[in-house]
Amino acid sequence: MAKTVVLAYSGGLDTSVALKWLQVEKGYEVIACSVDVGQQEDLTEVRARALATGAKIAEVVEVQEEFANEFIARAIRAGALYENRYPLVSSLSRPIISKHLVEVARRYGADAVAHGCTGKGNDQVRFEVAIRTLAPELEVLAPVREWGFAREDTIDYGLANGVQVNANRANPYSIDQNLWGRAIECGEMEDPWNSPPSDIYAYTVPHGSVPDSVVIGFNKGVPVSLDGEEMPLYLLITRLNAIAGSYGIGRIDMVENRRVGIKSREVYEAPAATVLLEAHRQLEDITLERELAHTKIELGLQWATLVYDGLWYSPLRMAFDAFMEEASSVVTGEVRVRFSPNGFVVDGRRSPLSLYDYELATYARADTFNHLDAEGFVKIFGLGLETWSKRQGRVQP
Amino acid sequence: MAKTVVLAYSGGLDTSVALKWLQVEKGYEVIACSVDVGQQEDLTEVRARALATGAKIAEVVEVQEEFANEFIARAIRAGALYENRYPLVSSLSRPIISKHLVEVARRYGADAVAHGCTGKGNDQVRFEVAIRTLAPELEVLAPVREWGFAREDTIDYGLANGVQVNANRANPYSIDQNLWGRAIECGEMEDPWNSPPSDIYAYTVPHGSVPDSVVIGFNKGVPVSLDGEEMPLYLLITRLNAIAGSYGIGRIDMVENRRVGIKSREVYEAPAATVLLEAHRQLEDITLERELAHTKIELGLQWATLVYDGLWYSPLRMAFDAFMEEASSVVTGEVRVRFSPNGFVVDGRRSPLSLYDYELATYARADTFNHLDAEGFVKIFGLGLETWSKRQGRVQP
Amino acid sequence: MAKTVVLAYSGGLDTSVALKWLQVEKGYEVIACSVDVGQQEDLTEVRARALATGAKIAEVVEVQEEFANEFIARAIRAGALYENRYPLVSSLSRPIISKHLVEVARRYGADAVAHGCTGKGNDQVRFEVAIRTLAPELEVLAPVREWGFAREDTIDYGLANGVQVNANRANPYSIDQNLWGRAIECGEMEDPWNSPPSDIYAYTVPHGSVPDSVVIGFNKGVPVSLDGEEMPLYLLITRLNAIAGSYGIGRIDMVENRRVGIKSREVYEAPAATVLLEAHRQLEDITLERELAHTKIELGLQWATLVYDGLWYSPLRMAFDAFMEEASSVVTGEVRVRFSPNGFVVDGRRSPLSLYDYELATYARADTFNHLDAEGFVKIFGLGLETWSKRQGRVQP
Amino acid sequence: MAKTVVLAYSGGLDTSVALKWLQVEKGYEVIACSVDVGQQEDLTEVRARALATGAKIAEVVEVQEEFANEFIARAIRAGALYENRYPLVSSLSRPIISKHLVEVARRYGADAVAHGCTGKGNDQVRFEVAIRTLAPELEVLAPVREWGFAREDTIDYGLANGVQVNANRANPYSIDQNLWGRAIECGEMEDPWNSPPSDIYAYTVPHGSVPDSVVIGFNKGVPVSLDGEEMPLYLLITRLNAIAGSYGIGRIDMVENRRVGIKSREVYEAPAATVLLEAHRQLEDITLERELAHTKIELGLQWATLVYDGLWYSPLRMAFDAFMEEASSVVTGEVRVRFSPNGFVVDGRRSPLSLYDYELATYARADTFNHLDAEGFVKIFGLGLETWSKRQGRVQP
Repeated sequence: MAKTVVLAYSGGLDTSVALKWLQVEKGYEVIACSVDVGQQEDLTEVRARALATGAKIAEVVEVQEEFANEFIARAIRAGALYENRYPLVSSLSRPIISKHLVEVARRYGADAVAHGCTGKGNDQVRFEVAIRTLAPELEVLAPVREWGFAREDTIDYGLANGVQVNANRANPYSIDQNLWGRAIECGEMEDPWNSPPSDIYAYTVPHGSVPDSVVIGFNKGVPVSLDGEEMPLYLLITRLNAIAGSYGIGRIDMVENRRVGIKSREVYEAPAATVLLEAHRQLEDITLERELAHTKIELGLQWATLVYDGLWYSPLRMAFDAFMEEASSVVTGEVRVRFSPNGFVVDGRRSPLSLYDYELATYARADTFNHLDAEGFVKIFGLGLETWSKRQGRVQP
Repeated sequence: MAKTVVLAYSGGLDTSVALKWLQVEKGYEVIACSVDVGQQEDLTEVRARALATGAKIAEVVEVQEEFANEFIARAIRAGALYENRYPLVSSLSRPIISKHLVEVARRYGADAVAHGCTGKGNDQVRFEVAIRTLAPELEVLAPVREWGFAREDTIDYGLANGVQVNANRANPYSIDQNLWGRAIECGEMEDPWNSPPSDIYAYTVPHGSVPDSVVIGFNKGVPVSLDGEEMPLYLLITRLNAIAGSYGIGRIDMVENRRVGIKSREVYEAPAATVLLEAHRQLEDITLERELAHTKIELGLQWATLVYDGLWYSPLRMAFDAFMEEASSVVTGEVRVRFSPNGFVVDGRRSPLSLYDYELATYARADTFNHLDAEGFVKIFGLGLETWSKRQGRVQP
Repeated sequence: MAKTVVLAYSGGLDTSVALKWLQVEKGYEVIACSVDVGQQEDLTEVRARALATGAKIAEVVEVQEEFANEFIARAIRAGALYENRYPLVSSLSRPIISKHLVEVARRYGADAVAHGCTGKGNDQVRFEVAIRTLAPELEVLAPVREWGFAREDTIDYGLANGVQVNANRANPYSIDQNLWGRAIECGEMEDPWNSPPSDIYAYTVPHGSVPDSVVIGFNKGVPVSLDGEEMPLYLLITRLNAIAGSYGIGRIDMVENRRVGIKSREVYEAPAATVLLEAHRQLEDITLERELAHTKIELGLQWATLVYDGLWYSPLRMAFDAFMEEASSVVTGEVRVRFSPNGFVVDGRRSPLSLYDYELATYARADTFNHLDAEGFVKIFGLGLETWSKRQGRVQP
Repeated sequence: MAKTVVLAYSGGLDTSVALKWLQVEKGYEVIACSVDVGQQEDLTEVRARALATGAKIAEVVEVQEEFANEFIARAIRAGALYENRYPLVSSLSRPIISKHLVEVARRYGADAVAHGCTGKGNDQVRFEVAIRTLAPELEVLAPVREWGFAREDTIDYGLANGVQVNANRANPYSIDQNLWGRAIECGEMEDPWNSPPSDIYAYTVPHGSVPDSVVIGFNKGVPVSLDGEEMPLYLLITRLNAIAGSYGIGRIDMVENRRVGIKSREVYEAPAATVLLEAHRQLEDITLERELAHTKIELGLQWATLVYDGLWYSPLRMAFDAFMEEASSVVTGEVRVRFSPNGFVVDGRRSPLSLYDYELATYARADTFNHLDAEGFVKIFGLGLETWSKRQGRVQP
């Protein structure tokens, strides 16, 4: 009796050929599973393609709301930017997709789970570590890594095996997109000196747009409203993607360090992510105490690396999130973002819990700060260095 | 016989009144010392004003080149942004000004050094810690902190004592500027919800501009050329301030955490700093090994906090710089910056020492990466979490 | 009408003289408050001395159990050792004493709180920051810092004002002790090259002792039993102080960095703390996943510095504790400690949640580890350095 | 024509069988290379055994002095303890052995390098990453990992192929030793609840001993003398191993986290390492400024993890060492260590560059510290928390 595998199915070339290959070369019955993380594709059509390619069952799972509330919200709270720049677009979707692959596998009593990642990227790490952690009893298959085809070979194998291949041999880009952003790689961008082609963008196509500013409301570190209108996070992100994207905001062009030891050139579009992370940080500026704020920046960097590396389901991520949740309990308030073509600024922030104290900060007569306390403070604060200078005399440039 | 004090003299209201106050109230002979860190003021005129206000001697010290090479260059190499955003405009100038105040004091055998800072800001800390570390034998005076006048009182004292006061009572802003940027505070900005007034900017006044892109060359982490033309760093910064400023690039609006325990709203203009720090980081992306790159980001944050807090002359800063110098030995190459109104992107970077390896990174047939090694890698990489899941079963969200 | 102050009263020279001084020099009515944190003194007698010295009211507050459960337990969970060595003996007692001083002040409607610390130590920082944070409306007085007496002057002032002074002018040591340990400073130890005198110890006086080993049980990172017998933490610590102290275990001789910029020689005795922190760490070794364990060590150091610096009541300490609590949810099990004169080892640890996996770790035939996966792992793990070597060729020593 | 491999040869069972196996199964000509890192074995005899087992060439390389000066000295300077406890005994020897394997391979024009490590330990990572980084052109072979024999199989293969096997089937321990310590694993210790057998120790066999104290001199963070007698570091370590070992000092019993995702029980003996690291730290206590000292502790932990993980030859280790070298420039002075059975204390430390300042630290009348400065210091230092308490009111336990 044939074993069953649940395949993460996107409808693209690689997973379509994988769907066939698992049947032909490995003798599996395949359950295709397509997870809607906001990639803006017609998953009904994707489902039909799966069945046409021989899937025994084709599941479509809608998780946009869960993705926003359980994954993106934590990333915002943590202020997560890998290498201080990448808002973890694909890194965040892999663990939730893995979770649902495992759920489908358990529902149908499947023996294995398969993904369509190659052997040189991060996503294989994210999928496999997540799946093995969630379900150590399931086998994990990686057909694309195993067959080792170049792109042309994949097309040829697909054509030879009756896969409906609508891949354009001339389209050289590899794309992954979801609610939180869009990643584009390959083609001429593989030379990091080349400018990205102007026609690759989809989330950030500038056109004159209104409104020119928006007020974002946060509750405990999570966005909850736009211009005073409360809405679910996934919807808020969708709207903000449209607004900020229309100004061309949120393009990121970088060479990043993959977990597997190689550098890769990546271009991202993440309009809502870019704006929300900056707005969140500005709200933290008025609500977090200094030492907490500084430590949170460092732990946020570590959080981002951990999740980038595929370690979402890990006790360290959970402990970091306990820190972040406690820290974020006061990050409630509003931030005003002002857009202009190609750029935006936060030019206002306020909170009922603000630690900004006009009476202390002002240089006007309202001033309540005791200037003379500062004299003692500065002397003691510098005392260790004064001793250092006297004793070791190594003061340099 | 009267004691002598060297006063850091800017020519503004506070230090002009201080110059008089130190004579009248404290009986000092005053040596005014004005240090040119690129603040674009006529220091000849400032010097004349000092003498007119009773300074026994008025020194003008030109340090732009030293400021760029010994202070700003280290900040670029460290990637220094306080709280991930502020490029340390005033923080960097205080230690070099302190150094020259001490030199002047020693040259003339003065007894004390004085600065014009209030008791609630960071600059008093920077000046006093630096001066006491460089010259524990000198007394440090802080007339503005000591007299405790509000702005109006200062003007009145000045008028009453024959100080040539050209302060505009209506101008509510406090400004500090140098080669590396410009800081504006006070006025209506003291409410962090208010947008900054549109007329406060000087370094970032947008007007249609050429060129629309520039290639910045770096050697060991320090900028050395623009579009292939080598030039001293202070000149390179001056030119880039003009170019990037003409696109309105480099405005920063934030609430920051001062060392003395209060939050303050600050608006900065730092066109060259903003562009150079991003370009430098992008060059690091292709030249620094992953673990080094990640650690350097964390130490760069600590470097920035240390210098922000006034601890430039300290053994920790020196040890950090030894780390940064060693790490930066390979950060040599070129970065292309493309400007548009209100924004810019780095869209190309290259280096003879680049660790980006096309053969490893590409998905085309040139690929030399062994995809199957990855299978073993991922299994071992996730082994600890697999055990965790089996034994502790605490996998969450 | 006289204002009222609550004085932290230990019964020693400084606070006895302070009790009088506050009445005589400042005109306060004084409420003496003695907090029992396990210092093993007769507080009934202390109370009587307070009343004899003019206290209007003398309160004795018993907090040993709260001290153990709310303060020491968190320190154990965090693995807190300041500068990797000092178990925070006095640092932990100051915040709980401050809390009860504030409670007493509020109960009696007092106007101020006073402590007996000098101006050069850490304890003034701990008391004042805690009190101002807990009760910004209360004034804080520091008579010992304010009067600036040397020890002899204090004795003279006391004698002259009818204070019952039983201080031995020849006893040069300053001592603070509680449940968690004992601190001894001053005298000939002020030269860090001198050995501590042999007669200064009280908690660690070696004498042949049974038992020679003990099994300590932990639940979620907190000690709960000795040799299988469950008991409250404060009692467990008391017993372990006796056992380990009888072997001479727990002496710490160090020069530490105070918050106020000076170095001081300190000798501590902390038998239970030394044993419990090591036992706890050993239990973590088998229950914490690697990345979590490593991060927790770094945050534990930061926790210790924060608390040492007097910042117990702070949002960063609370966020760290949320991290520690989540991380510690699996730190349950038993540790066997074996004593010998002057030393001890942990030579056994076990847990129902242990991540130690015999099948994976053994070199015997039971081995289930796939050795060949390791080949791929090592190649990918070192790939970045291989590229570094090829491209940058900077391999050194 | 046969290819040539350089085998790291210890003379033990595994590498003796590997020597034969590489000839028989792989057709290599084998050059045996035995590196003397202070393992106290007769390498002349080891060399003879290599030749008797078919080695074409057998090299013995004496590197004790280089090992001490270039590797151990850096570990001491960094204060390196993996997981705050393990002084990196084997971790430090692997990179120097790798370096000499590569040198021998290049001298003889060999094609490959081989080591005798299994697939589940750290040493395979350390050897292979080091060798590939030092010589990307050389193949790396891991016969023991490849053949996958259990211990009994190895013995049988050896006997069947004429290898002189003097392994005792009953001796269940795996041992690695060098100048810096000795590691013992396996046998009944594979259950972490079992006490180590009493007969496994060699470096720490207690017997009444003189002297009972020793003064260790350091220069820039590196030990240079014992009781005033200057000597090379490797000799100093050898002597101190004898002295401290005779008191039974330096036993470490722990469960550690290997790089390959498993936990293992390890017992170490490291008398000199234990004493020198503590003495070094105590000297740092009086010579390093506070902020530098605290940062150095954190970076030292990271240094230790990096080297434990096999990343000695890496740009991050080099940058860390630049930090450590700069920081250590003042760590010069003397430390007195006092031994007792099973334990030792540092009870004196002094330095011409000491930052300990009697005038500041003393409570006697010599006191020069201005106690009143402290009042202002404490107020400003706690100001942020006071504001936090007033505005957010979240003060807890």
